Amino acid sequence: MKDIQNQSDNRKIDIKKVGVKTITYPVTVLDKAQSSQKTIATINMYVNLPHHFKGTHMSRFIEILNRFHGKIDIMNFRAILEEMKMKLDAEAAHLEMAFPFFLKRADETAVLKLSKYECAMHCFLQEDDDLRLDIAVPIAHPFICNGVEIPGAAFGLWGKVLVSVRFSRFMWLEDLIDIVESIIRNEGHLDGDRSFTDKPVESLLEKLETRFKELSELKWYSITVENISQGYALFATTGSSAPLSGTPYYC
Amino acid sequence: MKDIQNQSDNRKIDIKKVGVKTITYPVTVLDKAQSSQKTIATINMYVNLPHHFKGTHMSRFIEILNRFHGKIDIMNFRAILEEMKMKLDAEAAHLEMAFPFFLKRADETAVLKLSKYECAMHCFLQEDDDLRLDIAVPIAHPFICNGVEIPGAAFGLWGKVLVSVRFSRFMWLEDLIDIVESIIRNEGHLDGDRSFTDKPVESLLEKLETRFKELSELKWYSITVENISQGYALFATTGSSAPLSGTPYYC
Amino acid sequence: MKDIQNQSDNRKIDIKKVGVKTITYPVTVLDKAQSSQKTIATINMYVNLPHHFKGTHMSRFIEILNRFHGKIDIMNFRAILEEMKMKLDAEAAHLEMAFPFFLKRADETAVLKLSKYECAMHCFLQEDDDLRLDIAVPIAHPFICNGVEIPGAAFGLWGKVLVSVRFSRFMWLEDLIDIVESIIRNEGHLDGDRSFTDKPVESLLEKLETRFKELSELKWYSITVENISQGYALFATTGSSAPLSGTPYYC
Amino acid sequence: MKDIQNQSDNRKIDIKKVGVKTITYPVTVLDKAQSSQKTIATINMYVNLPHHFKGTHMSRFIEILNRFHGKIDIMNFRAILEEMKMKLDAEAAHLEMAFPFFLKRADETAVLKLSKYECAMHCFLQEDDDLRLDIAVPIAHPFICNGVEIPGAAFGLWGKVLVSVRFSRFMWLEDLIDIVESIIRNEGHLDGDRSFTDKPVESLLEKLETRFKELSELKWYSITVENISQGYALFATTGSSAPLSGTPYYC
Repeated sequence: MKDIQNQSDNRKIDIKKVGVKTITYPVTVLDKAQSSQKTIATINMYVNLPHHFKGTHMSRFIEILNRFHGKIDIMNFRAILEEMKMKLDAEAAHLEMAFPFFLKRADETAVLKLSKYECAMHCFLQEDDDLRLDIAVPIAHPFICNGVEIPGAAFGLWGKVLVSVRFSRFMWLEDLIDIVESIIRNEGHLDGDRSFTDKPVESLLEKLETRFKELSELKWYSITVENISQGYALFATTGSSAPLSGTPYYC
Repeated sequence: MKDIQNQSDNRKIDIKKVGVKTITYPVTVLDKAQSSQKTIATINMYVNLPHHFKGTHMSRFIEILNRFHGKIDIMNFRAILEEMKMKLDAEAAHLEMAFPFFLKRADETAVLKLSKYECAMHCFLQEDDDLRLDIAVPIAHPFICNGVEIPGAAFGLWGKVLVSVRFSRFMWLEDLIDIVESIIRNEGHLDGDRSFTDKPVESLLEKLETRFKELSELKWYSITVENISQGYALFATTGSSAPLSGTPYYC
Repeated sequence: MKDIQNQSDNRKIDIKKVGVKTITYPVTVLDKAQSSQKTIATINMYVNLPHHFKGTHMSRFIEILNRFHGKIDIMNFRAILEEMKMKLDAEAAHLEMAFPFFLKRADETAVLKLSKYECAMHCFLQEDDDLRLDIAVPIAHPFICNGVEIPGAAFGLWGKVLVSVRFSRFMWLEDLIDIVESIIRNEGHLDGDRSFTDKPVESLLEKLETRFKELSELKWYSITVENISQGYALFATTGSSAPLSGTPYYC
Repeated sequence: MKDIQNQSDNRKIDIKKVGVKTITYPVTVLDKAQSSQKTIATINMYVNLPHHFKGTHMSRFIEILNRFHGKIDIMNFRAILEEMKMKLDAEAAHLEMAFPFFLKRADETAVLKLSKYECAMHCFLQEDDDLRLDIAVPIAHPFICNGVEIPGAAFGLWGKVLVSVRFSRFMWLEDLIDIVESIIRNEGHLDGDRSFTDKPVESLLEKLETRFKELSELKWYSITVENISQGYALFATTGSSAPLSGTPYYC
């Protein structure tokens, strides 16, 4: 097959992104207690294609991924992105990975409890680089018995908090989860002056934003609160439109 | 292409089922208030293949489905199944369709309320025929304010009831839903003597089974109660192992 | 429950979007052959919340939807959006609906063929209004026998074309699908000079964009070509960064 | 809360299964090359409930799972099942886990290739015990250039082979995958005498069954071949109705 990869293209068609998506792949993520944790990610890799090339060696995306097999962690994101830019002669490179993150905790009854959180990382490299972290924190109703909360019990799933952040300096994922969950707990009482259709979604969002504004580790955030109901979900979203103060940061 | 369909097959390989699956298709279902309701189904069609044939004309499944386009309802299931048996020279024919069913009701505030229920029908024809109906009834928490239930409000999704039934005589889907939902309401009080980990799933299942045993319209049933929690679901399943008394019935 | 809806909020927290999502609901869409077609949509409704309100009457989203029950079609989108703005005292309103669209055609063998296309409409109303249409066109391999294409046969699923458009004047969805499918057919020959990892995704994208640039009915478009492979998908995306020439248009 | 767990139940309601489902959890699976492989499973655990008990301590399912955290592998399935039977005073215990299995291979170009296979294990313990393994092997079209197959290239996804087996003696998952894939390759030529609607699904199924009948490691199997098309899938299923000869086997 004749190599038509390097012939210049006069049609100047603006191909913005070229890549591979939904690759299931084992990765390693940082873990405060165990230093690292192995999990399985769904990965997207793509580049902003330059105009003077006629075709992309798409096989190279998988080749790069496989070359980093066993070393796919936050410490190597920049190296992966740089290899993508170089090998594909690209102006910019994108790496996205979604994965379940497991948090090991001893619950009230001192029994080990393993909680799962759906996370995603979006890494970008052009001249500057960028890292966005998304995390979903489920909300289960506390069980109230005669006004007293029974630990470890719940009344089904109320909904979830979806948080997207950009860091100005390092922060453990576990600490971010703890902050969100402590606010959820304080909001979680089933007192009588709100119905599922009104305040709670917004009032929980307010409490979360008030706290997030104080976090110096963050230079940007977006928060969504979802309350699932019978057949649909109520939601409210807010965020810092412009990146908050703080020096740019990348792992 | 030489026709190898009708050459007899000496290898006697026991092909059990051959067909098409996950076809999205418009269908019509019975509706107590409006006589009929148009919805979109995911359909599987397959046959028990005879041994003396070497190949199946799979294109015929879609041809049959398209020939019944606009007339795919419970009244025609038998005709569809018979055409499948005949056209594919099959010993038995299966038709499965899953669809959202919409129930229009005026809620407490007299505002029209449209509720969605995931349903499935499994039809089978050999010498006898068979119809099984599955339906999922979601369970949302009532909103309790100072011990009083606030209508139309809920605290997230507690879980769902999954019911499978075979009829001994005709019964409206709407009536079956009403029976399940009235039992859910009676069980739904957030009183203090049960935690999410123990009794409720089973006690709700008990109440449902006690009621289902009385329903002369049913000759068989299976009931599952699911309580979703943070990251998993608790469930309990029961059913009448042998078909209950009642004359066989097919629409 | 005391009404706290209308107390002004001094905290000036910037809640961007409030609404309901993933409501399954029956809708009507335009159909070139039958004038209209009933289908089932997944709907999101949300507003940009003003700052001088403390809480949103979320129940109103569903009330509005139910009031338009049976009349949810493109002709009423503006009315729905205006009612959302008004009833929720919002600066802007969003309505998103995803639905399967069915195209009835007689295939080569003159047998009725029903094809399904996943579509979505995104409507927005502030001062101006906006309508974006998304559609997914699946790509199945033609069946080549001794270099001749066998009609109605295919070799599995090659991938799909995802098109997003904004209209400068009315265009039938059916015509947009026909344009995409005719280009796919011309590209679809299994000739020997391309591998799954390189040119085809981009060359098909080029052909599509060349054609889309000529369509005066469009004022903006974005095109993605996806080629599914074993365990992942290859893709390429392009689009008109700035809206193309043409007068603004809304149904 | 008064303990009503141990009161005997006179209503004799036949609760068949009680348990927890869809728990996402890290597990370890055997790996021929690396001895073991860490992956993430979706787990269901349930028991056949005895009649003389009124309630199940459902919290114990999660307690058992967490007690085996880090040791959840095929060698411990029996221990987990026995603890479930004992702790829940059950007649029978079920453990189901679905997980992606990764197979590392050097492809034709000697570049490491990581393939993913969706697997599931169904373990059961009553007097006897039972282990069923399910695995999905995707089928991608070979790329034919002038009649010659180009390695590492494909034309989209043709479909998949779904295999369920019970073992009479130990067999590596990798060997089972190799057997299925070698038969797929031999069937994979795009010769001209079959259309997507007829023979191929069944002829591939025949070839697979002929081979499976020879495998002395299996005492039972079921095979399904799926050919995805535009908007639906064609399938054919066969299997050994009665367990094949061979001594019962459990890891």
